[in-house]
Amino acid sequence: MLPITPLSLDSETPFYRQLCLQIRDLIGSGRLAKGSRLPATRELAGQLGLNRTTVSAAYELLEAEGLITGHVGRGSFVAGSPSAHESGIPWREILEPAAPISPAAPTSTPVAGFSSSRPSELLFPLEEFRETCAEVISSPDAQTILQLGSPSGYPPLRRYLLELARTEGIARDSDDILITSGCQQAFDLVQRTLVRNGETVLLEDPVYLGQKNAFERGGARLVGVPMGTNGIDLESLERSIAREHPRLLAVTSNFQNPTGATLSLASRKALLGITQAAGVIVIENDIYGGLTYEGEPIPTIKRLDDTGDVVLLRSFSKLAFPGLRVGWVIGPRALIEKLTEAKLWSDLHTDQLSQAVLLRFAESGRLAEHRRRMLESGRDRLRAALNACELYLPAEASFTRPRGGMSLWVTLPAPLDAGELLPRAERQGVTYLPGRYFAVSHSQSSSLRISFAGMAPDQIREGIAVLGRIFKEELERVRAHSPLAETPAMV
Amino acid sequence: MLPITPLSLDSETPFYRQLCLQIRDLIGSGRLAKGSRLPATRELAGQLGLNRTTVSAAYELLEAEGLITGHVGRGSFVAGSPSAHESGIPWREILEPAAPISPAAPTSTPVAGFSSSRPSELLFPLEEFRETCAEVISSPDAQTILQLGSPSGYPPLRRYLLELARTEGIARDSDDILITSGCQQAFDLVQRTLVRNGETVLLEDPVYLGQKNAFERGGARLVGVPMGTNGIDLESLERSIAREHPRLLAVTSNFQNPTGATLSLASRKALLGITQAAGVIVIENDIYGGLTYEGEPIPTIKRLDDTGDVVLLRSFSKLAFPGLRVGWVIGPRALIEKLTEAKLWSDLHTDQLSQAVLLRFAESGRLAEHRRRMLESGRDRLRAALNACELYLPAEASFTRPRGGMSLWVTLPAPLDAGELLPRAERQGVTYLPGRYFAVSHSQSSSLRISFAGMAPDQIREGIAVLGRIFKEELERVRAHSPLAETPAMV
Repeated sequence: MLPITPLSLDSETPFYRQLCLQIRDLIGSGRLAKGSRLPATRELAGQLGLNRTTVSAAYELLEAEGLITGHVGRGSFVAGSPSAHESGIPWREILEPAAPISPAAPTSTPVAGFSSSRPSELLFPLEEFRETCAEVISSPDAQTILQLGSPSGYPPLRRYLLELARTEGIARDSDDILITSGCQQAFDLVQRTLVRNGETVLLEDPVYLGQKNAFERGGARLVGVPMGTNGIDLESLERSIAREHPRLLAVTSNFQNPTGATLSLASRKALLGITQAAGVIVIENDIYGGLTYEGEPIPTIKRLDDTGDVVLLRSFSKLAFPGLRVGWVIGPRALIEKLTEAKLWSDLHTDQLSQAVLLRFAESGRLAEHRRRMLESGRDRLRAALNACELYLPAEASFTRPRGGMSLWVTLPAPLDAGELLPRAERQGVTYLPGRYFAVSHSQSSSLRISFAGMAPDQIREGIAVLGRIFKEELERVRAHSPLAETPAMV
Repeated sequence: MLPITPLSLDSETPFYRQLCLQIRDLIGSGRLAKGSRLPATRELAGQLGLNRTTVSAAYELLEAEGLITGHVGRGSFVAGSPSAHESGIPWREILEPAAPISPAAPTSTPVAGFSSSRPSELLFPLEEFRETCAEVISSPDAQTILQLGSPSGYPPLRRYLLELARTEGIARDSDDILITSGCQQAFDLVQRTLVRNGETVLLEDPVYLGQKNAFERGGARLVGVPMGTNGIDLESLERSIAREHPRLLAVTSNFQNPTGATLSLASRKALLGITQAAGVIVIENDIYGGLTYEGEPIPTIKRLDDTGDVVLLRSFSKLAFPGLRVGWVIGPRALIEKLTEAKLWSDLHTDQLSQAVLLRFAESGRLAEHRRRMLESGRDRLRAALNACELYLPAEASFTRPRGGMSLWVTLPAPLDAGELLPRAERQGVTYLPGRYFAVSHSQSSSLRISFAGMAPDQIREGIAVLGRIFKEELERVRAHSPLAETPAMV
């Protein structure tokens, strides 16, 4: 039997490629010697629980690489080794195996793609964007924009954003700003600058995979603090801080990804009290704060913080054009100085054309106008999603009720596993991200993220109806097979 | 007894600071209450096996922060808690001191700014750039460009560049491509993916500061291999490899920054032989290769490499618009896969607007036309620089004679120090970068980089004339003060 480890359901890499890679490694490491016979496709498919065509596709790839040869009626044999080939550096050995990557942005999904937390491109104001670009490139500053820039960011954009933050009471005189290539880079730079190998970082649990990976790849020790329906659970936070002595806490104040949960004003103040008493650095991720569809926005933690120590992360990506990678960090000057140095040696500076275009888009009032439309459509989409959840999900399921942002979080009744049910949903044209993608220290297998912002209301309803049907069917099936679960205790 | 955990011998943080941080935590967490008495310095030093001055230094720091107060004859007492202060997080202590950064891009210099290796913005084809942007934003693909993209890069740009590299015989079937935010990010990703903490990396010496910093910040151990007038010195390289067992070698084939040196065809082949025999990964930095002003370009090391293992870095920055951060890496598929994963968690992906604009700029033939003009003006500037060096520098100075690129390297006769002379040059309106910015393992204090590409020929001549005068004057002054240097030995 071939020693094949279970293929990853999460990987972007299709099964046949994963299988091909594993067999190539077996050949490369000598565990499958030249001349040895591979199992028949039917046999290997049986062993791995795969479709036979998947195994055939893997064999074809290996044959194309010259690693195996097939003989009709006799089977396939190892013909050579990847390292015996021209290539001298044993790349597969040097490189650690790839970590699971969340699925790619949804390809076209016939019914509804709930798996990506991003705005619909149909809402992009292309005409206004064209005008903005034309204005920027015709401006006397065009030469400067196209020339090498500053690691801190395009100076007029920095001034604009810092001034805005000062007016809003968010930035203090002791604060400074750094433009980053989106919030993902801000997390990466924070990790590089503040977290030494092995130091502990507290994250919300569940949390956006990119945040987890930014810290984990830098060698941080991650501890997840459970999320409640109103944001991070403060009692757990207090206990975790006392037990783990973390260097920092990353927290999302508004419409957290993936749960959609928002911290109340009182919770924000309490969180500040807890972290300040313990000297824990707070990184406030506020990329969804601009997308409050209902009610009034709550002041950021940064704004409530009298010490000025809170570090605030924001971005244009969720509101405007995610393909333009522009975010920013506001925090104490001493920290921004070090983040800027880390930024310099990471990529010199963020693309200046995009910085200039987004500045012009904001300054001209077009961003405000676009935001108004985004809030309107976001409100419709959110309502459609909440109504559909109410209407179609099993009564035993629970879900969060955000007032903004892009996602909500559904928790299915036991023993349903959202990851196991995903392939069935996909076959019916609906995608989502299962809870386990967002797990830090706690299993999130019964939950799933529904990102509604990229979908029209009708699609949202239809998609959630499909999911509801699948979940209810599965619940019935499971209960039919374990009748005792429904039997009340004999007391 | 204070519950102090053993101090770390490995930490970059000095003992007194580590101790200070631990005591501060004890105070912050309430385990050391306000008013409690700290042990005498002698006592704590004994408990921890530390020097008494170390403990005193920690106490001084705590006192400076207002956390403890000392009373002569009575000892030190806890006076407050870190959170009671206005700023709770001691940023300056947490953050390591800033590393030296090379001087900022030259501000306006009345005579000549030789310190930045970048094209002149006066040569930017703004009209063509405007047209290109308009075409991109009016294309049916505009929505896709503004939407979240792929970590690998904008697919049409990847296809275009890979196809081009295949046509040129540079990329093999086993190669793949990743779009990066300029070459700086490529170095950062290579470091993250290939170099574990403490592993050895061979760099050219002198070398571009950004390359050195990208590896150093990742914890690599850097060893510089001396540069000759024809690129990296192969005998030294061979010795360094035998002695240091490096993981990889980063090498610039054409017009190296800062020396301007180019490896001959024979040297490239010899380098391949040396590195392949030792299993050392070669990272070929070729950002200047497109700027060959005189003679024929020499095939890249990547092209000469039969194994396909060489990793090639290129960029649009030196040829077109440095403010648009688009570079790329071509290398074996297994490596590109891992670099792409590192890229994903660094910043999701490179800005797509710039990728699309540069693709269109290239596909439309405008890049080729722009390059023709850049080569023409580059040739004039290079000649002006070489003639002026010949004419004005002290006869005892030596300088490289590149056939392309942006910089040449001047070495002054002993005992002149290029760094010490810089302020004098700046007062006379001329800037350059002294050799020490580029030093890895060897002092480069007698050398300086003259980056000529951003300057018109007249400015170049005038600037080098000023430098020549300063260097000659200094040489005379030094000799007048040490007459023995001119006295022949009495034999």
